Amino acid sequence: MQVGFIGIGRMGSGMAANLLAAGHELTVYNRSPAKTETLIGKGAKLAGTPGEAARGNVVITMLADDRAVEQVVFGKGGILDTLPRGAIHLSMSTISYALDERLAAAHRDKGQDFVAAPVFGRPDAAAAGKLFIVAAGKPEAVTRCQTLLDALGQRTFIVSEAAATANLVKLSGNFLIAAVIEGLGEAVTLVSKAGVDRAQYVDLLTSTLFGAPVYKTYGALIAEERYHPAGFKAELGHKDMRLALSAAQQLQAPMPLASLLADRFLALMAAGGGALDWSALALIAKRDAGEPTKLTPSE
Amino acid sequence: MQVGFIGIGRMGSGMAANLLAAGHELTVYNRSPAKTETLIGKGAKLAGTPGEAARGNVVITMLADDRAVEQVVFGKGGILDTLPRGAIHLSMSTISYALDERLAAAHRDKGQDFVAAPVFGRPDAAAAGKLFIVAAGKPEAVTRCQTLLDALGQRTFIVSEAAATANLVKLSGNFLIAAVIEGLGEAVTLVSKAGVDRAQYVDLLTSTLFGAPVYKTYGALIAEERYHPAGFKAELGHKDMRLALSAAQQLQAPMPLASLLADRFLALMAAGGGALDWSALALIAKRDAGEPTKLTPSE
Amino acid sequence: MQVGFIGIGRMGSGMAANLLAAGHELTVYNRSPAKTETLIGKGAKLAGTPGEAARGNVVITMLADDRAVEQVVFGKGGILDTLPRGAIHLSMSTISYALDERLAAAHRDKGQDFVAAPVFGRPDAAAAGKLFIVAAGKPEAVTRCQTLLDALGQRTFIVSEAAATANLVKLSGNFLIAAVIEGLGEAVTLVSKAGVDRAQYVDLLTSTLFGAPVYKTYGALIAEERYHPAGFKAELGHKDMRLALSAAQQLQAPMPLASLLADRFLALMAAGGGALDWSALALIAKRDAGEPTKLTPSE
Amino acid sequence: MQVGFIGIGRMGSGMAANLLAAGHELTVYNRSPAKTETLIGKGAKLAGTPGEAARGNVVITMLADDRAVEQVVFGKGGILDTLPRGAIHLSMSTISYALDERLAAAHRDKGQDFVAAPVFGRPDAAAAGKLFIVAAGKPEAVTRCQTLLDALGQRTFIVSEAAATANLVKLSGNFLIAAVIEGLGEAVTLVSKAGVDRAQYVDLLTSTLFGAPVYKTYGALIAEERYHPAGFKAELGHKDMRLALSAAQQLQAPMPLASLLADRFLALMAAGGGALDWSALALIAKRDAGEPTKLTPSE
Repeated sequence: MQVGFIGIGRMGSGMAANLLAAGHELTVYNRSPAKTETLIGKGAKLAGTPGEAARGNVVITMLADDRAVEQVVFGKGGILDTLPRGAIHLSMSTISYALDERLAAAHRDKGQDFVAAPVFGRPDAAAAGKLFIVAAGKPEAVTRCQTLLDALGQRTFIVSEAAATANLVKLSGNFLIAAVIEGLGEAVTLVSKAGVDRAQYVDLLTSTLFGAPVYKTYGALIAEERYHPAGFKAELGHKDMRLALSAAQQLQAPMPLASLLADRFLALMAAGGGALDWSALALIAKRDAGEPTKLTPSE
Repeated sequence: MQVGFIGIGRMGSGMAANLLAAGHELTVYNRSPAKTETLIGKGAKLAGTPGEAARGNVVITMLADDRAVEQVVFGKGGILDTLPRGAIHLSMSTISYALDERLAAAHRDKGQDFVAAPVFGRPDAAAAGKLFIVAAGKPEAVTRCQTLLDALGQRTFIVSEAAATANLVKLSGNFLIAAVIEGLGEAVTLVSKAGVDRAQYVDLLTSTLFGAPVYKTYGALIAEERYHPAGFKAELGHKDMRLALSAAQQLQAPMPLASLLADRFLALMAAGGGALDWSALALIAKRDAGEPTKLTPSE
Repeated sequence: MQVGFIGIGRMGSGMAANLLAAGHELTVYNRSPAKTETLIGKGAKLAGTPGEAARGNVVITMLADDRAVEQVVFGKGGILDTLPRGAIHLSMSTISYALDERLAAAHRDKGQDFVAAPVFGRPDAAAAGKLFIVAAGKPEAVTRCQTLLDALGQRTFIVSEAAATANLVKLSGNFLIAAVIEGLGEAVTLVSKAGVDRAQYVDLLTSTLFGAPVYKTYGALIAEERYHPAGFKAELGHKDMRLALSAAQQLQAPMPLASLLADRFLALMAAGGGALDWSALALIAKRDAGEPTKLTPSE
Repeated sequence: MQVGFIGIGRMGSGMAANLLAAGHELTVYNRSPAKTETLIGKGAKLAGTPGEAARGNVVITMLADDRAVEQVVFGKGGILDTLPRGAIHLSMSTISYALDERLAAAHRDKGQDFVAAPVFGRPDAAAAGKLFIVAAGKPEAVTRCQTLLDALGQRTFIVSEAAATANLVKLSGNFLIAAVIEGLGEAVTLVSKAGVDRAQYVDLLTSTLFGAPVYKTYGALIAEERYHPAGFKAELGHKDMRLALSAAQQLQAPMPLASLLADRFLALMAAGGGALDWSALALIAKRDAGEPTKLTPSE
């Protein structure tokens, strides 16, 4: 297929490489073109504007946030103007529920198709083609994307015909992970103040009821207070809680736990921890318990 | 060993039977003696008071709450008066951190030993000898209990020499489960208001990052809204959140997530749902989102 | 002075009339011109676009939300294009901290002045010229607005040179009122469940420590459950909590109480109460306590 | 009247002196008798046990907490054994809803009367006879106490026939004050991070909508960060939030704002601020915003 790929960052570079490897004709665009060199070396073409990358069957966007996606789609030289009728914008970024709805409407007005397909997984999973993909959109359009999705992930879950629901599911997943982190942070602080060993406690949890990867991964990081380098930054965790809350507000579904998490991430950021791994949320529970941490010094 | 067993309820009956099967001499006590008949038939002796059951090497208590344990230990004819010096009170009930500390001190004053060993597991696991046991106390005393614990559970975790920490770990485990329930409740409500199928959503979660039993069990109950009959009642979930908060207060370790959970369980109870399974906490998120539920009727 | 006035709603109509009465030359603009008739009858001129109303010394905007202000300022025929260099945009709407910052920058780039001056007070106070005004901006520009502000309010508080801080103070005031409402809602529910009379309880509060108008006004509404017609709608209360939280996020100052309030307002809206007075927040505490209310019916 | 007075502390000493001055025959008891000397010098008799102070028409208790009241009533030599049939125990301490219910029942069983009458006011108000008193109990018994209450306070509010409701109202009042403190703490932190002057901001609030003493008193303390010496200690604020939550639980009336306040007070205590004035709660909002405070040092 003729595929455009916009956003050659830590996730996108591995994903684009997998599409090349699967035999697709790739045109790539990145704001700073330097990052595209490896892909050009493997046969990708370079586009000078986002719109130039959108002249094929499908254009994929994999960008940092709403603003970046808005510029690339609606901005001057954006893909909305050049994407052919019947071609697909496959949006794989984690963005807001509201922007997804706006994108779906804008493409529909132009006779273009829109599929949202955000992913679960870190850069290593992206490079290995092992992402979990959550897709939503018109069934016929999703089907046309399937060979691309197969090259990018280990499994695709199709959640509904309304494109925006895919990001909702993605955000809810990050919300559930953050809830686990907060729970572990409070629990580890509690038992360790009573003299229980942190690592032994996490081992007990993950050997019994809490055997899932999410507890093993974050339990170990919290037990060892290994918050640097970040796998996923606290400030991105905060952003996702806010996107979840924004969708919750639009759908009128109050989420007090998400509110709690957003406030705690914000406290971590205010204390200088925004670039730490999001499991560093546990530092807030620790500080609240009067234990010394490396957060903002006192007066 | 000569073992007393006090509290022949849904959990205790299976546990006591396993001790008999392992060849121990058992003396049992229950407030309503009718429940002890099966065990008597298998060779257990019946004690007329808790104290009578406490004349051997070890006396086990497996009771509903602090009050029941206080009566059996400190009340007239209680075990504090009759347990021989050097014998052990093995307390397997889920009780408060504060009562554990009080029990440890009282037995120490009498030259008796005290081991706390609350369990994770439902009645079926108790009957099958498959409980997870969290033990704490003087190492030598815990060691003397080991053959009993081996007959009751699939694995024993020894957390510290301070007996009260065992219940702290137990309570923290129930706190983490309740956090999962609340998270799922909010997430399922959010996505289902946007049109995503509840069951399909839970399947997606448990097929990816959230593969632990706790997500599978509670995810299914919430997706299908199968809150009756209760595996573990909401009002007991509320009790455990309060015990966790009480310990958190004593240890000065604020737990805002536990506070949120306690308030939500209380709202469920106030709406008439105290006897539902604790996964019915998801009904509060649903009601808050304006969706109809079977909770308290409107005016 | 030559003054433009944009936004002739429930607040703006009274305010504009006061400016006319004080002898200013007024040009008014409203999206639906019908509402301007009374003012025209009193000598105001009618503008066909927002920009036409902005050709004098000062143009005042008094609009419902960020979106309305953005259209009137940045849209086609907006005031940014026509306001003379050195003239002032006096923004009296309650809008976001972020938009205030953006407006200040945009006007500065055009050599225009920008003063933010949101108000406390209901339509009756607006009509009577009894508003409290919170102003911020370049001191010299604020001074030039003073005669206008004197015609509109009983007192002007100048909070800083950074225009955006005026709305921050305004939003924080509404946050504090909402906190009083939530506190009263929880307290009244608690004591009335124990049999204390609601009205007698509020009387006790306001006769002792809580003599401020805010307790008298909202205490009476809550005691009598008089939530209709709305003085200030719950959905506007929710909007202001969200604006406060948005500023809190930008300034990295976590506000857990504001988060709680936002979630409670959202629950009220989801239950169909968005158009009730914002004191109806007390219905959520009441419903949580299992008491019947007129909110969303059960299944 | 023949009156016993138990608890000659900072509040009790002034109250007892007012009863003497009003001509009542006073018998006083205090655990450390030294504090009674001034009263003895003015004509009061000294009792050797609480029970000895309870042989007249009314015995007043004014003690620190539940435990102290329990000892004095139910302990050896306690007032339950000596108070004549038909005489009154007038309990003016701030205690739990549950203990009030227990006291009412115990006295009823002995043919004694029980009136609960906790107070609002600091030691200076107690000494000046200017307390606000919240009374509950059998109307006839409350009437018999009225001359005593008139000597102690500026006004008595009678809330219901159920004695326990008086403390409920008292606790709800402290809850509302703490809500004001938390609101001010969050708001002051927010606006001061944007550059608004703290004192000027508080002045603006108290000059407009928030003119009640509670805003003036606590607004000034927070603006100036004058948290020492304590008028009312943070740890007592925490105790009252917990008593309110305990009553809320018993009455099944969830109070999420009270939960938030309890957690924040606990964080303040864990950071070493338990002996500061309870308005120091504002330090937690400040620390959460990454501002330096004098709380627990970092690692």
